[in-house]
Amino acid sequence: MVPGFLARAVDVLLGRQGRSLHFKAAGAATVVLLFVVLVGSGLVVAAERGAPGAKLTSYPLALWWSVETATTVGYGDFYPVTLWGRLIAVVVMVVGITAYGMVTAALATWFVGRDQERRHHRLHQAEQAVEQTYEEMTHAVHERFDRLERMLEGGRTQ
Amino acid sequence: MVPGFLARAVDVLLGRQGRSLHFKAAGAATVVLLFVVLVGSGLVVAAERGAPGAKLTSYPLALWWSVETATTVGYGDFYPVTLWGRLIAVVVMVVGITAYGMVTAALATWFVGRDQERRHHRLHQAEQAVEQTYEEMTHAVHERFDRLERMLEGGRTQ
Amino acid sequence: MVPGFLARAVDVLLGRQGRSLHFKAAGAATVVLLFVVLVGSGLVVAAERGAPGAKLTSYPLALWWSVETATTVGYGDFYPVTLWGRLIAVVVMVVGITAYGMVTAALATWFVGRDQERRHHRLHQAEQAVEQTYEEMTHAVHERFDRLERMLEGGRTQ
Amino acid sequence: MVPGFLARAVDVLLGRQGRSLHFKAAGAATVVLLFVVLVGSGLVVAAERGAPGAKLTSYPLALWWSVETATTVGYGDFYPVTLWGRLIAVVVMVVGITAYGMVTAALATWFVGRDQERRHHRLHQAEQAVEQTYEEMTHAVHERFDRLERMLEGGRTQ
Repeated sequence: MVPGFLARAVDVLLGRQGRSLHFKAAGAATVVLLFVVLVGSGLVVAAERGAPGAKLTSYPLALWWSVETATTVGYGDFYPVTLWGRLIAVVVMVVGITAYGMVTAALATWFVGRDQERRHHRLHQAEQAVEQTYEEMTHAVHERFDRLERMLEGGRTQ
Repeated sequence: MVPGFLARAVDVLLGRQGRSLHFKAAGAATVVLLFVVLVGSGLVVAAERGAPGAKLTSYPLALWWSVETATTVGYGDFYPVTLWGRLIAVVVMVVGITAYGMVTAALATWFVGRDQERRHHRLHQAEQAVEQTYEEMTHAVHERFDRLERMLEGGRTQ
Repeated sequence: MVPGFLARAVDVLLGRQGRSLHFKAAGAATVVLLFVVLVGSGLVVAAERGAPGAKLTSYPLALWWSVETATTVGYGDFYPVTLWGRLIAVVVMVVGITAYGMVTAALATWFVGRDQERRHHRLHQAEQAVEQTYEEMTHAVHERFDRLERMLEGGRTQ
Repeated sequence: MVPGFLARAVDVLLGRQGRSLHFKAAGAATVVLLFVVLVGSGLVVAAERGAPGAKLTSYPLALWWSVETATTVGYGDFYPVTLWGRLIAVVVMVVGITAYGMVTAALATWFVGRDQERRHHRLHQAEQAVEQTYEEMTHAVHERFDRLERMLEGGRTQ
């Protein structure tokens, strides 16, 4: 069931807006974060099993712990006390922070892109105005040539 | 009173600078965050009611808890101990982090936009200089045509 | 001494790189954060004075608390227990998070600006190449006119 | 062994993608963060040694504490209780937050750059289209001059 859920999450996060790098990266980071939270919770229970003073003794408790760790809230109601438990915690923390950094960066890129679309639109309009002036000038030059030729032909047939 | 306050917050956050996507998104995220903090505090009290060891027993305490959760400070003086309480906590955490990400991204977009305005200004000036050279050249070409025509007319009237 | 330190901090943060909006905003946010941390520590001690269970009883302890609050670390060794103490805490949290958002946004803007400078440099070079082609073409057109005029003059003097 | 690891980390982080400012800055911030975490852990043990109630009594524990401090998780299982320990903690917090800000800003700059590459590509294509029209027009003008010259020569040889 968990793999099915993950597969669907991957689909939703990578499938729809998979065109731009920033949305792909933010989606991939979220998928990796979900994976690390779900798998890390299981690993930390295995690592802490039997350690004196360990509170992370069941998967549901470990899942709650890994969420408050990935979000850097860290109430302190649960925390690992073994070397391996703490190493897994470091991975959960770093992946959590990086995922939020990715999402923030992707949002910024999306906003900046929309903002520039507007600015480039104005730039494009200015460019089109220049091009139109240019075409009018070309037309005028050709008319001057036509007139010169008519004058030359008129001079010869006189 | 709370709906009145929320309505006013919506007005202030969405009304004034409602033009750009990034300010709208940051404003909307802040409104959603305020809503989740205010409503989540009520829900968590209902979820934790009667649970053994529950400390989130009143709305004011829950409001304080939801603020330190949304900001990811998490002192650990209060935390939920029931399944539903923890699910609400996850929503408060995720909405809190996303809202700050939105605000950071909106600030970055605003700064980048102001920075580019300056750069585009220089680009626009360069473009205007090109256009002026272009107009002067067009004028010179027409003068050459005029002179040619006068020469041709002079030749014919000789 | 504290005002002197603040004044110097304001100088350093606003004086040197005071040209761009993003550096000014990040500097101002840092100054406001320093102010809120220094003043909030004093206010929280006053607010918590005499409350049962209060641990924030001296300015040095409150200063340590306000730093771990502004950075959202929140060990839980100190936290306010009164209404006013908690309101001050909310201000410290929100100002802290906003200041870090400002600094992150300013860094992003600085990086993006440097990255675009490089890209605009290439765009500028392309523009200069176009302008040079344009000048060469103008020169060629004038030479054609000169030749035409010489031909016309030659025809007349024959 | 620690200097060897650091040297390799510096190589990996600065060596490969050392071209753009944003990747260099994010790499440098990560290296500084690793250094502050490794050295700060040692300093905090020295600072806390012998203080009443101190829990940070060994380097491995201090390393775990400095990681949860730098990521702003702050469970509260360990925290400094002396003035010097807390000053070192402030440095770890501030360097940690700044490093994550740098990484987020670098990611945003990378995403924005890739997004603009696409947009500039379209702008470049538009520019090339203009240039081609321009060359065609120049060619047409020279043909008109050729025809005029042939007419003049034809007129003279009649």
